[in-house]
Amino acid sequence: MSQTVEKWDYFEYAAAAQTTGNPFIDVRFEAEFTYEHRVVRVRGFYDGDDTFRVRFMPDTEGTWRYRTYSNVDGLDGLDGTFACVPPTGDNHGPVRVVDPYHFAYEDGTPYHPVGTTCYVWNHQGDTLEAQTIATLKDAPFNKMRMCVFPKRYVFNKNEPPCYPFEGEVTREWDDSLLDNYKTQAPPEFWDFTRFNPAFFRKLEKHILDLQALGIEADLIIFHPYDFGAWGFDRMPPGVNERYLEYLTARLSALRNVWWSFANEYDLMLDLDMNDWDRYFKIVQSNDPYDHLRSIHNCRGFYDHTKPWVTHCSVQHYDMLQMPTWLKQYNKPVVVDECGYEGDISRAWGSLSAESLLECFWLGFAAGGYVGHGETYWNEDETLWWAKGGTLSGDSPARIAFLRQIVEAIPAPGLSPFASDKDLRGIIPEGAYKGMAAGHRGEDYYLLYLARNQPRFRVFDLPANNRYHIDLIDTWNMTVDRLADDVSGRVEVELPRRNYLALRVIRQS
Amino acid sequence: MSQTVEKWDYFEYAAAAQTTGNPFIDVRFEAEFTYEHRVVRVRGFYDGDDTFRVRFMPDTEGTWRYRTYSNVDGLDGLDGTFACVPPTGDNHGPVRVVDPYHFAYEDGTPYHPVGTTCYVWNHQGDTLEAQTIATLKDAPFNKMRMCVFPKRYVFNKNEPPCYPFEGEVTREWDDSLLDNYKTQAPPEFWDFTRFNPAFFRKLEKHILDLQALGIEADLIIFHPYDFGAWGFDRMPPGVNERYLEYLTARLSALRNVWWSFANEYDLMLDLDMNDWDRYFKIVQSNDPYDHLRSIHNCRGFYDHTKPWVTHCSVQHYDMLQMPTWLKQYNKPVVVDECGYEGDISRAWGSLSAESLLECFWLGFAAGGYVGHGETYWNEDETLWWAKGGTLSGDSPARIAFLRQIVEAIPAPGLSPFASDKDLRGIIPEGAYKGMAAGHRGEDYYLLYLARNQPRFRVFDLPANNRYHIDLIDTWNMTVDRLADDVSGRVEVELPRRNYLALRVIRQS
Repeated sequence: MSQTVEKWDYFEYAAAAQTTGNPFIDVRFEAEFTYEHRVVRVRGFYDGDDTFRVRFMPDTEGTWRYRTYSNVDGLDGLDGTFACVPPTGDNHGPVRVVDPYHFAYEDGTPYHPVGTTCYVWNHQGDTLEAQTIATLKDAPFNKMRMCVFPKRYVFNKNEPPCYPFEGEVTREWDDSLLDNYKTQAPPEFWDFTRFNPAFFRKLEKHILDLQALGIEADLIIFHPYDFGAWGFDRMPPGVNERYLEYLTARLSALRNVWWSFANEYDLMLDLDMNDWDRYFKIVQSNDPYDHLRSIHNCRGFYDHTKPWVTHCSVQHYDMLQMPTWLKQYNKPVVVDECGYEGDISRAWGSLSAESLLECFWLGFAAGGYVGHGETYWNEDETLWWAKGGTLSGDSPARIAFLRQIVEAIPAPGLSPFASDKDLRGIIPEGAYKGMAAGHRGEDYYLLYLARNQPRFRVFDLPANNRYHIDLIDTWNMTVDRLADDVSGRVEVELPRRNYLALRVIRQS
Repeated sequence: MSQTVEKWDYFEYAAAAQTTGNPFIDVRFEAEFTYEHRVVRVRGFYDGDDTFRVRFMPDTEGTWRYRTYSNVDGLDGLDGTFACVPPTGDNHGPVRVVDPYHFAYEDGTPYHPVGTTCYVWNHQGDTLEAQTIATLKDAPFNKMRMCVFPKRYVFNKNEPPCYPFEGEVTREWDDSLLDNYKTQAPPEFWDFTRFNPAFFRKLEKHILDLQALGIEADLIIFHPYDFGAWGFDRMPPGVNERYLEYLTARLSALRNVWWSFANEYDLMLDLDMNDWDRYFKIVQSNDPYDHLRSIHNCRGFYDHTKPWVTHCSVQHYDMLQMPTWLKQYNKPVVVDECGYEGDISRAWGSLSAESLLECFWLGFAAGGYVGHGETYWNEDETLWWAKGGTLSGDSPARIAFLRQIVEAIPAPGLSPFASDKDLRGIIPEGAYKGMAAGHRGEDYYLLYLARNQPRFRVFDLPANNRYHIDLIDTWNMTVDRLADDVSGRVEVELPRRNYLALRVIRQS
């Protein structure tokens, strides 16, 4: 009886071979996976210890055959079968774009990203990493932005437990490099022709730990926060490309992987737009499963209209631009950084919980998505935004409440109104001056009032339908029914409070 | 002994003459006012009852002579003198632009506009008008936006006590006209060749009532809120021009007059940009005193770079654009409408006090100005924003506190930092993500944190100076000294609260 693998889990085939030369460079190891007449060719990888592996995520139930291809005799022509069986539990497959502004798992289950950022939680050692996972278990987040490479920055002065390449750090790093690392050549610690399989196995474990919690891993492939510590932001020619191939060969079969090509790509001044375009294409052609792909800005946006970008990953403070971005790019917009709840002295890390939550509601109400991060200072400099650990802010509970509200919206989720005229057809008094509104056809309307406090609000609801209207207190996390079984012009009376929202739900 | 007039008060000369024809149209009545070799020619006006008047605001102490010119024998060649004596009390002269972002009275006293809007408080009858004046006596405002013409709109369904032209309202107005008044010709109630002097005398009284309270009258000459009630937004060809001449002849000598050419000029679709340009030029050439001139948008801005615009009167919700506007126009920017504190169902009239106050601080901290309005609904539909009356909001007390802070800034006031680099030279961690900052040279720095709550904040203060640093709680209206006699890099510790600001003052 052949091995069984759940649909969207991954099958792994390992083969041992002693090879000459550099097995990362000199050995080609691939496999074809075949279901009936359909053939999918995937790249394998060297995992150290004379072991070569190839992974495959089947998307169709039934019997799959495989056969290996290699330039090494003992690795070529190996074959077998496995049975792809139905998914169980929370396995809904990888996340795809739908609608065009939203996401769903491949089985059609809606997925609304409610993300957080712990850039390098995965480089902090077992104790803290376990604490992060424990925190995430009770947190409202279903997406994690995290870096492959370690990070050097304020509050990030520690070394990771291991490194992606063979070699060792042989130079003391000091703070002055934060200002002048560009005046020095990158450190030469590494044999860039030899990956460190242990590093990547750890990364895979972290991604699977997240998967077990229902959390998508929004994996940041490159980032600028190196400052001469390791030089992973300035690797020699050809290394970035080889790294992309190795990464995709190892990780593509993990269903909860998203490719985030960079955090703040525009701060990586050694790479130009052609490089980013090329990296997108390399990953696209090496990832048989077409995982989500995005690239995150510091200032100017990458051109998200490019066809290889599946959704917009945005850094921006002004959520009122959400409808503009959605219409401009016609793709989902995820503002992964609007600023973080915290109390550090940096502007990006001192948002009050009220302010961050307002960003969330402004973005979600307009049909987009907004992400969380937390930067409360502590003695250990263990800030959630970088290292994970525990959460102490006031926003996560309220984001959990928001997530409940969002997940109750008819699939696939809210759209911005096509025009101000359309919006005023339903909400005659408009939704400007810092408010936001969205709708799902005629089934659902959401108006977020932010710090507006009207005593009354009017809706012009489609006359053929019956609706009920709820008052949502986004801060105090309450929902109160204001009207039942209404239609046409409806006026509702509101209390004088900040951070309220109104939702209008079509009765079945 | 000749009559005496305070500098910047006005001298008025009246002459009686029975004339044939229409005295508004057929009689030219002007006067030359002469101080030594300087001659100022000003236009007079017909004030009804066979009386012609000419007014003059002297700006130089000493003896002024005058002589009239007219096409009517009995009005021509009248002459005399008056003595211009030093100003007293709060008479600092008309307000001028300085710096280029700020204002000062002509005697050099700084003037920081802290305005409010009661569009038609002056058309509400004696009782309510007296109440408005009483309210203003204790309010923090030193500028009032008000319309010459009455207003028809939601909450504005009443007739004014009198009208600017001879005639009477002979048609019932009904609400349906709010939607379709454009389908009808303007009403024909008026003899547009005959002004109603009583109407303008009332207007002058209101302006002088404000002057007595130290309040500048930001007089809105045209506005779109007529909706077929009177047709003042769509007067026949030539009437707008004659109205401008009459208005300037009557009012220019009142030192606290500002010319606001329109509220929401871009909603007056019968007028095009050439019309507005021409109106500016007519007023400019008929106003011997060069009072401030602006024009207020609904959506798109008028081109405030045009030379006849003295300052930008803006409607916009986003105060974070203040530095951009200041640099773009190189003139003072007064956001007269960012939205109003209130609870009506319109987006522009339901800002919470917190939200409006945040707009104020964001705008002022960046070197601009922001104005107030209040729209709390009440049974009488007496909303401050339109009719005046009383104030019930939470922002005025806090605006009074802000005004104290602003008036303690070294003259002429704050500038935005020239660049983000300059800003970071003083505030190394920046002032983005919804914050604002400004400075007066090296003498004063202000950083408004809005809903950021950093535990620490760092300043890099000029090493040659000594400073003290205050924490301002803009909501609770407190000032606490955080540091004294500091210089260079200084870190201050802050409580975790929304709506704080930091000011850094150079010690003398």
